[in-house]
Amino acid sequence: MDGIIYIGNKGVMNYVLAVITQINNEDIDTNEIRLKARGRAISKAVDVEEMLKNKFMPELKLKEVIFGTEEVENNEGRKVNVSTIEIVLSK
Amino acid sequence: MDGIIYIGNKGVMNYVLAVITQINNEDIDTNEIRLKARGRAISKAVDVEEMLKNKFMPELKLKEVIFGTEEVENNEGRKVNVSTIEIVLSK
Repeated sequence: MDGIIYIGNKGVMNYVLAVITQINNEDIDTNEIRLKARGRAISKAVDVEEMLKNKFMPELKLKEVIFGTEEVENNEGRKVNVSTIEIVLSK
Repeated sequence: MDGIIYIGNKGVMNYVLAVITQINNEDIDTNEIRLKARGRAISKAVDVEEMLKNKFMPELKLKEVIFGTEEVENNEGRKVNVSTIEIVLSK
């Protein structure tokens, strides 16, 4: 656990719980949690942020949002660009 | 045209062109363009921002990103929460 949570195919609540677990984990000396997502999972990353803000951790602050582009290989082996997001939350 | 572009079901390039058109339109006295999207279209809004930044308007600055939640009625008439994004770009 290093303060980074990659948003994938699981449900929103999985990631909400992962954030809560990492934030409450004294072993991790980080004040920040970074939600990282690509492509269609970007919308889910925003769902996780909103769920945390509205329901579970209203004290969590949105520190920064970073957009980017990565080159990945699609199923046919072709290189395509995919958008990325990094949502930085701080205690 | 009021500097706001709602991202929906069209292709990414439709919205990229809409931004370029509004930015180059002297009638509009705004230095800002706001990309607004909800739910799954949030990922596409980031695609539009990245396409503008990487390919068409590198001089455009990312001024602010605003997340939110709206209550909408789904197809069965039930009220559900949907995440929203507003990406503020400035000349």
